[in-house]
Amino acid sequence: MSASKSATPGTVRPGGRTAKVRAAVLEATRDALVAEGFHALHLDRIASAAEVGKTTVYRRWGSPVGLVADLLRDMAEQSVAASDTGSLEGDLTANADLVRRTLTDPGSAPLFHAVIAAAACDGDCAAALNGFYTTRLKEWAPVVTRAAERGEIPASTDATELLRAVAAPLYYRFAISHEPLTEETAARAVRAALTAAQAGVYATRTTP
Amino acid sequence: MSASKSATPGTVRPGGRTAKVRAAVLEATRDALVAEGFHALHLDRIASAAEVGKTTVYRRWGSPVGLVADLLRDMAEQSVAASDTGSLEGDLTANADLVRRTLTDPGSAPLFHAVIAAAACDGDCAAALNGFYTTRLKEWAPVVTRAAERGEIPASTDATELLRAVAAPLYYRFAISHEPLTEETAARAVRAALTAAQAGVYATRTTP
Repeated sequence: MSASKSATPGTVRPGGRTAKVRAAVLEATRDALVAEGFHALHLDRIASAAEVGKTTVYRRWGSPVGLVADLLRDMAEQSVAASDTGSLEGDLTANADLVRRTLTDPGSAPLFHAVIAAAACDGDCAAALNGFYTTRLKEWAPVVTRAAERGEIPASTDATELLRAVAAPLYYRFAISHEPLTEETAARAVRAALTAAQAGVYATRTTP
Repeated sequence: MSASKSATPGTVRPGGRTAKVRAAVLEATRDALVAEGFHALHLDRIASAAEVGKTTVYRRWGSPVGLVADLLRDMAEQSVAASDTGSLEGDLTANADLVRRTLTDPGSAPLFHAVIAAAACDGDCAAALNGFYTTRLKEWAPVVTRAAERGEIPASTDATELLRAVAAPLYYRFAISHEPLTEETAARAVRAALTAAQAGVYATRTTP
């Protein structure tokens, strides 16, 4: 990839060139993370793989953690928007299916293994991964708010806690117990979270 | 630690010496994993730190993965036995509290981060971590079987799936979203899993 070479002055807006440099650097970061892991991440090699000047990479990203943090920001920005199927079960099923597809896709599964490993080794990577999930939980929270407004679950249901409950059994199999992650796993995670939500387990206070 | 030096021939049974060598090597493995991670694990350095001959370490463990796999076997063997409080809620609470304490203890939390990272990077480490959780789930499965016999939950409840549901929200916060893991997190995981189990979400077939 040669994003920087295509940025002929006068033909590409500065914003466009910046975006292309970022895309090339993040693609190289992603490839390096998957191939060798966080410990082998080196700014010189990323600059070379992305065909971007070393100075640019050092100035804009500063460190391997800077690269991982920006990659996770980009992943959060690129992620699929929350669904609005009209029922909480439909929306949670869409969410669980999205998580399942992401964690079983041959392209994205190794990337998630790599960022989870980086976060386990490095506190700043952990903060960046936390930021990724905070963004995703905020994006999907309206699904729960709308269901509460429709009276499907208690009004005081903690949206992010319910969404964590849907994702947790899938991530547990993916990153902790290393067991197969099937459509049935996703469907059961939805049924369990929905049943618990309806019973008020995720309510932040007692509702009438 | 100098397990090999204390093994004076004739004073210590061969089994005792073997056990001491293993304890010293696994302690050194644990320390190295926490301090530098799986990628920096080297048999020569483990032998040196454990004050055990290199030949012994290479012959008995063979590779860094061999060390991690044996450490995880030892962790499974040393783990707390399943409780039997007389109620499913009591037993699941004991289980969730055990997981919470393990993942928040300053001694064991870094070790779990390290083995989760190792498993994310290396397929053989993943298989070893899978073995650890398989052992733990088997150890605790009677808790669910007894509850089913008492009629607390459907007879066909999948014991391991219910136990995964208790642990998953705790591990999700620990290793995925990197959020605080509180007593309330553990209590809510128990209430959610129990409610879902009672509603038949973890039943493997429809029961009368």
